[in-house]
Amino acid sequence: MSTIKRVYTFGNKQAEGNGKMRELLGGKGANLAEMNLVGIPVPPGFTITTEVCTEYYEKGRDAVVETIRPEVEKAIRGVEEQTGMKFGSNTTPLLVSVRSGARASMPGMMDTILNLGLNDTAVEALAKRTGNDRFAWDSYRRFVQMYGDVVLGMKPQSKEDEDPFEVIIDEMKRERGVRLDTELTTDDLRELVKRFKAAVKERTGSDFPTDPWEQLWGAVMAVFQSWMNERAILYRKLNNIPAEWGTAVNVQAMVFGNMGDRSATGVSFTRDAATGENIFNGEYLVNAQGEDVVAGIRTPQQITLEGSRRWAAAQGVSEEERKAKYPSLEEVMPAAYKELFEIQEHLERYFTDMQDLEFTIQDGKLWMLQTRNGKRTGAAMLKIAMDMLAEGLIDEKTAVLRCEPAKLDELLHPIFDATAMKHARVLTKGLPASPGAATGEVVFFAEDAAQWNRDGKKVILVRIETSPEDLSGMNAAEGILTARGGMTSHAAVVARGMGKCCVSGAGELIIDYKARTIRVGDTVIREGDWISLNGSTGEVYLGEVATKAAELNDDFNKLLGLAKKYSVMRVRANADTPNDAKTAFSFGAEGIGLCRTEHMFFENTRIKAMREMILADDEAGRRVALAKLLPMQRGDFESLFEVMNGYPVTVRLLDPPLHEFVPQDEKGQREMAEEMNVSYEKIKARVDALHEVNPMLGHRGCRLGNTYPEITEMQARAIIEAAMNVEKRGIPVKVEIMVPLVGNHKELRYQRDIIENVAEAVFAERNDKIRFMVGTMIEIPRAAVTAGQIAEVADFFSFGTNDLTQMTLGFSRDDIGKFLPVYLEKGLIKADPFQTLDQNGVGQLVKQGVFNGRDVKPQLKCGICGEHGGDPASVEFCHFAGLNYVSCSPFRVPIAWLAAAHAALK
Amino acid sequence: MSTIKRVYTFGNKQAEGNGKMRELLGGKGANLAEMNLVGIPVPPGFTITTEVCTEYYEKGRDAVVETIRPEVEKAIRGVEEQTGMKFGSNTTPLLVSVRSGARASMPGMMDTILNLGLNDTAVEALAKRTGNDRFAWDSYRRFVQMYGDVVLGMKPQSKEDEDPFEVIIDEMKRERGVRLDTELTTDDLRELVKRFKAAVKERTGSDFPTDPWEQLWGAVMAVFQSWMNERAILYRKLNNIPAEWGTAVNVQAMVFGNMGDRSATGVSFTRDAATGENIFNGEYLVNAQGEDVVAGIRTPQQITLEGSRRWAAAQGVSEEERKAKYPSLEEVMPAAYKELFEIQEHLERYFTDMQDLEFTIQDGKLWMLQTRNGKRTGAAMLKIAMDMLAEGLIDEKTAVLRCEPAKLDELLHPIFDATAMKHARVLTKGLPASPGAATGEVVFFAEDAAQWNRDGKKVILVRIETSPEDLSGMNAAEGILTARGGMTSHAAVVARGMGKCCVSGAGELIIDYKARTIRVGDTVIREGDWISLNGSTGEVYLGEVATKAAELNDDFNKLLGLAKKYSVMRVRANADTPNDAKTAFSFGAEGIGLCRTEHMFFENTRIKAMREMILADDEAGRRVALAKLLPMQRGDFESLFEVMNGYPVTVRLLDPPLHEFVPQDEKGQREMAEEMNVSYEKIKARVDALHEVNPMLGHRGCRLGNTYPEITEMQARAIIEAAMNVEKRGIPVKVEIMVPLVGNHKELRYQRDIIENVAEAVFAERNDKIRFMVGTMIEIPRAAVTAGQIAEVADFFSFGTNDLTQMTLGFSRDDIGKFLPVYLEKGLIKADPFQTLDQNGVGQLVKQGVFNGRDVKPQLKCGICGEHGGDPASVEFCHFAGLNYVSCSPFRVPIAWLAAAHAALK
Repeated sequence: MSTIKRVYTFGNKQAEGNGKMRELLGGKGANLAEMNLVGIPVPPGFTITTEVCTEYYEKGRDAVVETIRPEVEKAIRGVEEQTGMKFGSNTTPLLVSVRSGARASMPGMMDTILNLGLNDTAVEALAKRTGNDRFAWDSYRRFVQMYGDVVLGMKPQSKEDEDPFEVIIDEMKRERGVRLDTELTTDDLRELVKRFKAAVKERTGSDFPTDPWEQLWGAVMAVFQSWMNERAILYRKLNNIPAEWGTAVNVQAMVFGNMGDRSATGVSFTRDAATGENIFNGEYLVNAQGEDVVAGIRTPQQITLEGSRRWAAAQGVSEEERKAKYPSLEEVMPAAYKELFEIQEHLERYFTDMQDLEFTIQDGKLWMLQTRNGKRTGAAMLKIAMDMLAEGLIDEKTAVLRCEPAKLDELLHPIFDATAMKHARVLTKGLPASPGAATGEVVFFAEDAAQWNRDGKKVILVRIETSPEDLSGMNAAEGILTARGGMTSHAAVVARGMGKCCVSGAGELIIDYKARTIRVGDTVIREGDWISLNGSTGEVYLGEVATKAAELNDDFNKLLGLAKKYSVMRVRANADTPNDAKTAFSFGAEGIGLCRTEHMFFENTRIKAMREMILADDEAGRRVALAKLLPMQRGDFESLFEVMNGYPVTVRLLDPPLHEFVPQDEKGQREMAEEMNVSYEKIKARVDALHEVNPMLGHRGCRLGNTYPEITEMQARAIIEAAMNVEKRGIPVKVEIMVPLVGNHKELRYQRDIIENVAEAVFAERNDKIRFMVGTMIEIPRAAVTAGQIAEVADFFSFGTNDLTQMTLGFSRDDIGKFLPVYLEKGLIKADPFQTLDQNGVGQLVKQGVFNGRDVKPQLKCGICGEHGGDPASVEFCHFAGLNYVSCSPFRVPIAWLAAAHAALK
Repeated sequence: MSTIKRVYTFGNKQAEGNGKMRELLGGKGANLAEMNLVGIPVPPGFTITTEVCTEYYEKGRDAVVETIRPEVEKAIRGVEEQTGMKFGSNTTPLLVSVRSGARASMPGMMDTILNLGLNDTAVEALAKRTGNDRFAWDSYRRFVQMYGDVVLGMKPQSKEDEDPFEVIIDEMKRERGVRLDTELTTDDLRELVKRFKAAVKERTGSDFPTDPWEQLWGAVMAVFQSWMNERAILYRKLNNIPAEWGTAVNVQAMVFGNMGDRSATGVSFTRDAATGENIFNGEYLVNAQGEDVVAGIRTPQQITLEGSRRWAAAQGVSEEERKAKYPSLEEVMPAAYKELFEIQEHLERYFTDMQDLEFTIQDGKLWMLQTRNGKRTGAAMLKIAMDMLAEGLIDEKTAVLRCEPAKLDELLHPIFDATAMKHARVLTKGLPASPGAATGEVVFFAEDAAQWNRDGKKVILVRIETSPEDLSGMNAAEGILTARGGMTSHAAVVARGMGKCCVSGAGELIIDYKARTIRVGDTVIREGDWISLNGSTGEVYLGEVATKAAELNDDFNKLLGLAKKYSVMRVRANADTPNDAKTAFSFGAEGIGLCRTEHMFFENTRIKAMREMILADDEAGRRVALAKLLPMQRGDFESLFEVMNGYPVTVRLLDPPLHEFVPQDEKGQREMAEEMNVSYEKIKARVDALHEVNPMLGHRGCRLGNTYPEITEMQARAIIEAAMNVEKRGIPVKVEIMVPLVGNHKELRYQRDIIENVAEAVFAERNDKIRFMVGTMIEIPRAAVTAGQIAEVADFFSFGTNDLTQMTLGFSRDDIGKFLPVYLEKGLIKADPFQTLDQNGVGQLVKQGVFNGRDVKPQLKCGICGEHGGDPASVEFCHFAGLNYVSCSPFRVPIAWLAAAHAALK
């Protein structure tokens, strides 16, 4: 036990740890050590390792205190020596900060204690040393409050309760007739401390601890304890950080930015975190402690002169007023500024990444409190990586790895204008189903959406839920809002596929189709009223909020090029129309991995022919209707092949159950009856006959083509003829015909025979030939299990991980809203398996499928075409599972490329 | 090539083959050889092997003829030598029969040619030799017709077309003004032959072949060709006979039973094929050819005197008339009878099984044409096996193997009285969903069924489809008839579970709930009218048809005892009520493998409490309702544990989605609203909220217990308390709590924690303890894939192969009716996977599950509790997959035992 080192000291350009020891010391601790090692002024202190946190949860508080006591005492002595102060001294009391520091940065998630070591005698010594009574007592009352809240557990557990300390402050301000804390006198602060302590005694039954050591142990243990607080757990869940990692604790000598006008505190970034511009920037306040900069009570000032001038221009502040009231650090403390500027340059070069710095100037002397890689927007991420590559700071591989695939998403969708959004009124909040921003007039029916769109209006389609019949309306709308359905509902999936903004499952909405109104509480929105959707946050705004389109710049294309260069897997897109295909192509797709032919059937004249087929009494009748669809399908395929210009196009045969093509309600059925000139009763009877208890597991996929071979014949003919027509125009075509929902090899054999017979017939008619492939979706568990047999009949496999997830997990993605939120909350499941591939379950079947298939056909081309093809973690899995490509919605193609490159570079 | 022997001769008590060579010589050929070897008179001949059939399909007719010609010519010479006749002779023509003979008996499936070798000269020689012109010409015209139909392809292909030869016969009879073939004169027959040949020439463009060799090759090849005729393919499909087996061809010298009054032909059985009684029996006709006995034109006579007397008594024929018109063979030809009797004794002893014999007496000399193991009813199968065991003819293992598990089913359900059934009028036909016979008054609603039943009426519940709400009504009914749903619909599955007769999917029925009528064409049946169902055939009869109950006799119990003795796997039952449990127990179940607790929730007061829970706004409300259910559940479990008296009882926690417990229609919802004293709108809103697109994959199974832990708490408490109460009464209890629909180990862990906490609480309250196990269903593919992880938390696995099949194959068993029939017809799937386990797909996951589970826990108890537990082929699979037990519906327990014993003995 005692051979393990649990405490690492640093200070005065020396350190026991270093920047590489993030796992043990946490990010903050490792960087504090590293800063010392490169000669940057850092208040001395020490780090208690993350392993101690784990021990805390295993053995409990007392055992841990005993274990680390000797090392901590020794480390405190070191700090005392360097500062000339003494922990617990009545005259030169050493004050320390206690901060958490996890391996990955978890901003705002962990609690911090400042000014630890203060008590009734130390406060007087502090006042004496600084000559600033008010500062000393203000520090003291802050410490008691912070310590009471965090360590003694007085922080309210629910939002409705009030912080007891705040209650006391409010009382005091009422008594004194003042509005701001800063208006309280030193005596008021003394009185506050007294009242605070009384409150502590009353609430906890004990006196506020006056012994600095007791304070220290309490604070350190509170940091460990806070590792398991709700916010921290939630943050870890959202960011996939394992609980086992634990947090380190950093104890450092206090430095004060609030010791007078020669003191200051601030935060800065080595480059612009929003735009990525290579400009040193940041904010500071004179005579302030860290939290004041972000608290919003005083207006923080810019660090650089240039930044300050820009800020003033934006705020409409005159140069005179700026200089007088909001001067830059560069102007106010030029020496400290110069040192800070050099340090930031040094640190960025050292860490070769944009740094987020915290500093304090105490009585003219600059102290660095923290450096870390700065958070940034997607745009900044991209620009910084490409700039640093151009500057020679990092190499290509590093530049690629610097760009988080998921964050690219931000760059690909229109966004709200930031200022406009500030003034918008939030109506309600749903799920951020498909990112982007959309604004338009409310419309409730797909036909209206399409018509209004033709009339030049921007519309938001609002539905309780969407169905494939709404497709044209969704396509015509700026965004889609639904009251029901989760992140993977029809609306969400289709919208993401379209790269269209969508907020789903906004449960507060009461939608009345008849009255054509939405009601939220007392607010009523009528058809034609404007609303706006933020698909990235799920927020729904009343009225029109200005948006701006995303721009794909040179940096973006450069990154895409690098990603393609380093990626082993290839990326295709799921695209059903020439428009989709063009988008996909422009985003770098190297082919279409999934063209859903049924999406072509929903347009006006086509749905009619489709319905004629469904209503037909026999094969002959079906053939008559199919003959009408043939030229339309052929035309669609020709356009698609032309756009893809020789890149492979995987065309999936008809997949959805037939009932998706007929109206389910009486009104729609009566309209259909009239339009088709048959009786309503006949329509109703047919729709009833098509009804299925579990349509997901019903009469669909190749089961349609196996029961009605004439459908496959028509589609195969349309595909082959289209390919031949396009090739005749001198454009190369690579066509892959994909049979959906195969569960056993005989089904594929049967479909393949039909396709090959049709092809032979077309070849004979035209006295010409083309090459084509026939493959299958692997989307039924049985197909993965028997992939060896299926591979004998298949030229390629495409894993349909949407359906494979539904069947492997027994989750209907339309219905998981009833239990998935609870499952995520209780930790019964890690992530929504429709967003991130379930690697243990579904992933095993994918691996089995690839393994069994390649066992029979070593060169078998394997891809994936589920929603997961655009999810970075899933793309990584696909890389390691040995897939040849992923196929995803056009707007996620760049993300997939980047994720594939990351996987290859790892 | 030439070293392979393709032709095996037999005759005159010698044979190149023997009875063990069924694979090569077919069943008939092997037994013909064997009969020769044991000294029984058989017309000489030879067998062309099944391998030649395969060669025929590989190489074609001509190649095969060339290959076998030398051996066939030699074999014909052998027959000529033994008979003193000559093939193709004008004076002593050898006539032969050509018959198919597959490995497994395929009665009626293959075509036969008799009298081959006849032509215009041979017929005269035959007439001369027999002194019977009419016989000779009758044989000739039969030969031409048979040959024309079968070899020359003149048999009509569809039922609407007429046989051209029959048309000619009818013309001739009209011309002659006669009604029966036998009334035609010899000259008429001559004329017929002439006209037949003209028809052949007209249809085929060629003359009827006069060369016997040409005739022979044509006939042999026609037999091979007939292996692939539709009937044969269908029969093989129904009986799981592979096409690769092929058929042999048997060529034998003709013997004639129609050469006059000293000739006869007949069939006989060494024991009674219907009852199994050890009585030699059979039928014969004097002066007849084989087909006449079964053709039904002449009344066949009994072979034994005793049989003849019995027959006469049953027919009301006086002894005088019997003697005069229908004498027995024993009386008419005592010598031949005596020889036949000895031969049948010999053959039964030799083959140690009941034999089905064909014989012909030509001019006083007995010839055996065939012997084979006789087909028999389930009752006969059982009696013959147990009798032969008692007689010392066979040993225990053989007796067990002699009894086909599936045929036991016949013995377990009530059956229609055979005479009554003959006179019944068939209304329509549905699917034979659950065997047995039922008769009762038509009723349309479950409540009425229950009420009428309480009033002492027998009812048949008629529904479009059934749902769990109909359970009480189904229970009260004699049988269930549905218009929709397949062999695995709710009605079918529940009915089989109850051992209750059910006909499902009778599509012709038009059911009008409002008018309370069934319409089939013009027939209208009203509520209260009597109908009868044959669950073994799917037939629905108008009116009351008398039934009789099955009787389980000593033989049955003896067989069951032997099956248990030789079985390695154990058999449990799926039983939800004490009544079910008693039945299961009486049928030999060694425990309950699946008790579906939700079936206890449908009774009147319970469904109300259940609905209160569903309507509750929060956990507190649910707990109030659950508290009402607790004592009821506890009581149920107590009864169950008492009946099972120490045998293990596996109790599954709540499984179905909650919407199954609330009415889906407005009327029902309004009633529920009134009964529960809440608004209709609230009910409707809740039901709507519970609606799911794919309920099979929805909020059910442990997902309920995970989102509403209080449900699991209540059920766990009910189970544990019941077990403790019963043990207190001195009755041992072995309880296994089973968590349904687990897809990942964390779900089971969570449920297990709840159960264990409840148990600890109960133990503490009572200051006592019991042992219990907690295990899980493996019914989600992911559970099988991750069974290793799950096994760490589970005390046992029970494979729920119903749901596992649904998810692994992506088949909703409520919806497969739309494509499964086509799939079966096209051979895309071998068998209904809900009846017989899909071994390649689902079976692989079962094996993976067992393997992965036992890898972690070598002693892990594994069972199966799907419908497949009662299917013999699936039981065999379970044996080889290493399962510890199968659990099936009570009425299939004996079948499962027998199948398990078969598997162990194989």
